[in-house]
Amino acid sequence: MNTNSPSCLLFDKLIKHDLTLAFAESLTAGNLTAEFIKNPGASQSLLGGVTAYSNKVKQEVLGVKLSTLNSYGAVSKNTVEEMVTGLNKIIAADVCAAVSGIAGPGGGSENKPLGTVHMAFLVRGKLYTTVEVFKGDREEIIKSCIHEVYSFLFAELERQLP
Amino acid sequence: MNTNSPSCLLFDKLIKHDLTLAFAESLTAGNLTAEFIKNPGASQSLLGGVTAYSNKVKQEVLGVKLSTLNSYGAVSKNTVEEMVTGLNKIIAADVCAAVSGIAGPGGGSENKPLGTVHMAFLVRGKLYTTVEVFKGDREEIIKSCIHEVYSFLFAELERQLP
Repeated sequence: MNTNSPSCLLFDKLIKHDLTLAFAESLTAGNLTAEFIKNPGASQSLLGGVTAYSNKVKQEVLGVKLSTLNSYGAVSKNTVEEMVTGLNKIIAADVCAAVSGIAGPGGGSENKPLGTVHMAFLVRGKLYTTVEVFKGDREEIIKSCIHEVYSFLFAELERQLP
Repeated sequence: MNTNSPSCLLFDKLIKHDLTLAFAESLTAGNLTAEFIKNPGASQSLLGGVTAYSNKVKQEVLGVKLSTLNSYGAVSKNTVEEMVTGLNKIIAADVCAAVSGIAGPGGGSENKPLGTVHMAFLVRGKLYTTVEVFKGDREEIIKSCIHEVYSFLFAELERQLP
């Protein structure tokens, strides 16, 4: 484990401030959560997460509204916002993140090209969303997404709790 | 992707018979689900999953009883049975698996040595449990667990739907 990796930096920060963590994942399908347990002692902070690969799980487990999925699509700001707030209702972690995107090889469109990933973060009660279009193949898009989520969460905690 | 890997064999079998898949993970924390999306087209079968790293998530999301955790521990036949049946209630997949174990470095005991992993499988309504003691470090134990889960599910589907 590289001790300067965003995942390691976040882990240290969470432990220092006694904060818990949870994830809601679509395109990454467990990879985001799996990254965190490379830190020995991860169980001190990680509560768990939901992989909502299908829209059915986004709706039935995370409470994403069908009208949101129909109006904006699974890969949208609105969907990830509902994913992260829904996650927080079932797993009340201090720090939550949700991701939904197009990792390919198919699925891209003019409006939402391959690599588009929407992310939502709920950090000690504050909600943020962001969108990126990552380059590369499926594996690279997933890796970039993981890097971005951990970097964002660490930076935001640094801002809130310097 | 090795087309003879247990994950790939299971994927082909699930697609052939139009079956869906879900996971409940403790020690593997997303790695089990992540393995499946190495198969292009995974979304045709994978609904999603729950990472229940903490006992709180095992109880509150998967419905594992506190009395079960207190009497038998998180790493037990009883707990993984309740994890897999609880998973199936919130994600009604045709094929479900749940795992809970001791990946280390700490946590082992005389009765439950490091590497002990309990697994439960709900395959088209039939419930099975098994326990293994895997050798190696944390990463190797997780890899062995993933291999065992996919191998079991493929073998059982082969038996049910030759």
